[in-house]
Amino acid sequence: MTNTVNRQIQLSARPANYPKESDFDLVESPVSEPGEGEVLVKVIWLSLDPYQRGRMRASHPYATPMELGQVIVGGVVGKIVQSRTPAFTVGEVVEGPLGWQEFAVSDGNNLRRVDAGLGPLSTALGILGMPGMTAYFGLLEIGQPRPGDTVVVSAASGAVGQVVGQISKIMGCRTVGIAGTAEKVEYLKSGLGFDAGINYKTENVDAALTKVCPLGVDVYFDNVGGVITDAVFDHLNVGARISICGSISQYNQDEPEPGPRKMGLLVGKQARAQGFLVGQFRNQHEEGRQRIAGWIKEGRIKYREDVVEGLENAPGAFIGLMRGENFGKLLVKISEE
Amino acid sequence: MTNTVNRQIQLSARPANYPKESDFDLVESPVSEPGEGEVLVKVIWLSLDPYQRGRMRASHPYATPMELGQVIVGGVVGKIVQSRTPAFTVGEVVEGPLGWQEFAVSDGNNLRRVDAGLGPLSTALGILGMPGMTAYFGLLEIGQPRPGDTVVVSAASGAVGQVVGQISKIMGCRTVGIAGTAEKVEYLKSGLGFDAGINYKTENVDAALTKVCPLGVDVYFDNVGGVITDAVFDHLNVGARISICGSISQYNQDEPEPGPRKMGLLVGKQARAQGFLVGQFRNQHEEGRQRIAGWIKEGRIKYREDVVEGLENAPGAFIGLMRGENFGKLLVKISEE
Repeated sequence: MTNTVNRQIQLSARPANYPKESDFDLVESPVSEPGEGEVLVKVIWLSLDPYQRGRMRASHPYATPMELGQVIVGGVVGKIVQSRTPAFTVGEVVEGPLGWQEFAVSDGNNLRRVDAGLGPLSTALGILGMPGMTAYFGLLEIGQPRPGDTVVVSAASGAVGQVVGQISKIMGCRTVGIAGTAEKVEYLKSGLGFDAGINYKTENVDAALTKVCPLGVDVYFDNVGGVITDAVFDHLNVGARISICGSISQYNQDEPEPGPRKMGLLVGKQARAQGFLVGQFRNQHEEGRQRIAGWIKEGRIKYREDVVEGLENAPGAFIGLMRGENFGKLLVKISEE
Repeated sequence: MTNTVNRQIQLSARPANYPKESDFDLVESPVSEPGEGEVLVKVIWLSLDPYQRGRMRASHPYATPMELGQVIVGGVVGKIVQSRTPAFTVGEVVEGPLGWQEFAVSDGNNLRRVDAGLGPLSTALGILGMPGMTAYFGLLEIGQPRPGDTVVVSAASGAVGQVVGQISKIMGCRTVGIAGTAEKVEYLKSGLGFDAGINYKTENVDAALTKVCPLGVDVYFDNVGGVITDAVFDHLNVGARISICGSISQYNQDEPEPGPRKMGLLVGKQARAQGFLVGQFRNQHEEGRQRIAGWIKEGRIKYREDVVEGLENAPGAFIGLMRGENFGKLLVKISEE
């Protein structure tokens, strides 16, 4: 061990609405020694994901909230630098929920070996990790697209959305992405092969949907909720499926945002809105990972990463993520591979 | 023909919020003569149903709106009094969407012969008709209850709700009904065998659900939308199914009512909200009808009707229906059987 100091980002205050730098503390402490049966992991990549915002609240509908002074929850890719278990060897690369820090001790139960043959190590946190699996199963199992369907995805250039849209194209669907800058929309179309894109910050989403979804919407993959989702509801076809993945528009609202009651529209459309967690498909994740890795190798799926350097920049990057400032899967590079 | 005058209720004005008597006109005209291939039906029973409110609007999400001066849409049971088609014989009893009137001419395509052996003729508009089929398929196909599940139904003493709850009991589910008077709640429990009832006008629905659904809610059959549905959302179990049948709380709102955005809760619960129309199961209606008729004969299902006499009283009864004043399936008796 050359490093003896571990740096970690702790939650210093629960954010009020949008998080700010002062909600986070950068804390130094000695690197822990792994006990019997444990490993020490040196973090290489840290994943920043919208779900982390929910864990900063005092209560959470389905997960344990973080405590103040606790390291921020997050997935990482890292290298085993000490091992006191036969299950892992020094030098192996693993992925697991070790949090916003440079070193972490683990008993190995929450670690998964990363197959470097599938792609760059960072992809284990993105297209070949949780966001990729979220896109794959959320679209295919919940959205159930059929060739010729029109699929709309919100937050379309994000870690999940970009994969949803490209799988939708592979499935033979007309694919429309909603994103927040002209550059992102252009990338969806010319970079990723989406049929159309909508800039929700400059366009009237309802009018744009009328134009680019002339046959209505059969599948809506919803990452955002709120007013964008309201607009899509008015374009649902009979038998439409809404795959509810997330509601980032609501994550930074301390008071529940009121909106028009749109659920009744599902009646006439005989439509279905279904929420899911990526973990419910965990027994199939390996299938999804292999499938996406194959599409990447065939050149049918691309992915875009947005990389920030250094743990100390994680809070700022996360604040930007909450405001849609990232462009692609947001990662923090903590150390060299 | 002894009668030469037909009376009908026409839409004279589109209701603003709750309908009022002046939105309806009672109009007399000569009874029409059936043409070649047509029948003349003398109406016996007229069905009043919440969906009729939606047809009074200038636009409708999935049906043709009524025009001013048009007879109000509605299902009836009646007797063939003249026939100029071999398809029907004078004296046969039929059910069909002939509207709020005493006599109607039909080409027979929208008529269904009523099997008087299954139950009283009025049941063809209630438990053995559209509301019964709505309950049967909406609960079984959309809600998919399993023995031991907790099923909650709103508007529970209404035409649909009372059937939903009793089928839920037959399916082995803990069954909770939400209704608007103490008398209705008592009837659900002691009359229909519900496990518990909640009076939404006098109880805090959220607190009551905590008490009577200690294991959470697996199936919610939603007839009402709005604040009652909001409360149920906070009690959903993982994997819950919401069968969206109607949203009567919203039908008399001219401006869309804003509410808290609850759809995101479906994510953590991996839950599904699905709308349906009874017509989507039309090929199975006969199966549902026979099944329910059998349960009635076995004494496992009861039904309650709320009968008003005379076409002229249909508007007032319908206004009451919009306010939850009916107790059971609301019917207008137009003539003797």
